[in-house]
Amino acid sequence: MPSRDKPTPVVTTFQWVPPFAQGLVRDLRVRWAIEEAGGNYDVALIDFKQVKGADHRRAQPFGQVPCFQEGEVAMFESGAIVFHIAESSRVLMPIDPVGRTRAITWMFAALNSVEPMIAELAVVDIFEADAAWAKLRRPGLVEQVRKRLAELAAWLGEEPYLEGAFTAGDLLMATVLRNLRQTDLVAEQPILAAYLARCEMRPAFQRALKAHMAVFDTVA
Amino acid sequence: MPSRDKPTPVVTTFQWVPPFAQGLVRDLRVRWAIEEAGGNYDVALIDFKQVKGADHRRAQPFGQVPCFQEGEVAMFESGAIVFHIAESSRVLMPIDPVGRTRAITWMFAALNSVEPMIAELAVVDIFEADAAWAKLRRPGLVEQVRKRLAELAAWLGEEPYLEGAFTAGDLLMATVLRNLRQTDLVAEQPILAAYLARCEMRPAFQRALKAHMAVFDTVA
Repeated sequence: MPSRDKPTPVVTTFQWVPPFAQGLVRDLRVRWAIEEAGGNYDVALIDFKQVKGADHRRAQPFGQVPCFQEGEVAMFESGAIVFHIAESSRVLMPIDPVGRTRAITWMFAALNSVEPMIAELAVVDIFEADAAWAKLRRPGLVEQVRKRLAELAAWLGEEPYLEGAFTAGDLLMATVLRNLRQTDLVAEQPILAAYLARCEMRPAFQRALKAHMAVFDTVA
Repeated sequence: MPSRDKPTPVVTTFQWVPPFAQGLVRDLRVRWAIEEAGGNYDVALIDFKQVKGADHRRAQPFGQVPCFQEGEVAMFESGAIVFHIAESSRVLMPIDPVGRTRAITWMFAALNSVEPMIAELAVVDIFEADAAWAKLRRPGLVEQVRKRLAELAAWLGEEPYLEGAFTAGDLLMATVLRNLRQTDLVAEQPILAAYLARCEMRPAFQRALKAHMAVFDTVA
């Protein structure tokens, strides 16, 4: 639905990525958050050359995607953009002060205590799979990820979401867990596999994923 | 000064860590944020055995420090705790909506786009320095960190802080850069070296560091 008090935001992302990255680029997080919040957005597409160019670096100093522009608000970092969207959505962030701090806790936990080792494993498994160091590093790193996932499963227990009801913390955590799809590590933990499936079954996620993938279909 | 409307928060952290970690444990971020905000806090100290115990895991599912308790508010993740403190401090987060989103952007950038590769380098240089994979991994990883630091320096240019005036984004970025102290990578970029020194010269940082280090002096 059209927003009455905010300009329609523009999300900048890649016009194409290789199949191993399709479904994982971080604009998915932003699209999902906007869909949960019931908003609209436009998309601006760039390529691998533009993303490293001076123009884009004025919006994103590290030459990455996504960026987000909403009137005078100009942001980068998917976690920060999701946070901004969550602040005006009760679906993504509870209004009560205690619930709000728990959602914030899990947003940072997803991106700072879970994602780094999973991203490192993606480098080992995909980007540097043929490197000697990657083969030597993998067993120890897998054990580290396995332990972290077990801790997460232990926390979840029988709850559907990290704090009972869905928040932006679950949104970010689910997108982090999706980055293990080249492994069986999530499947090894039935609690986590069910949790990820539960997040991915949300209609807002399905709409976001469809729109994210449609970009690549168009270009291919 | 005593807060009139909030209970005094309690920060849980380690009673002792080895010298290579002293000055780097993440309670420093929380102490610094509270000092910038002009607040008080109490400290609860735990050891390496307690941090992995069931009691602590109810507050911190991953068996890490710090935790933060402020009346009914119970948080973990240093980034999240700093965010919570920043929300009631104009020193740490501007009130105007655009400035606020820029501070949020840099908080997530520090922890999700800069810290992971620096933390990986700390594993290579300190925790797994004798491993064959670490020796093979190091050159490529150093180049990656060097490139990211150059991007950060290019963004800073002649500005004193990431967005002109100090925010919680600088607080987190400075603590991330401190994790390179076993290398010359910050010194290689005079802009970044001056930026880090500028952050560390803040009286609030000095008070926080002194309190952080005093814990280890007491036990040793």
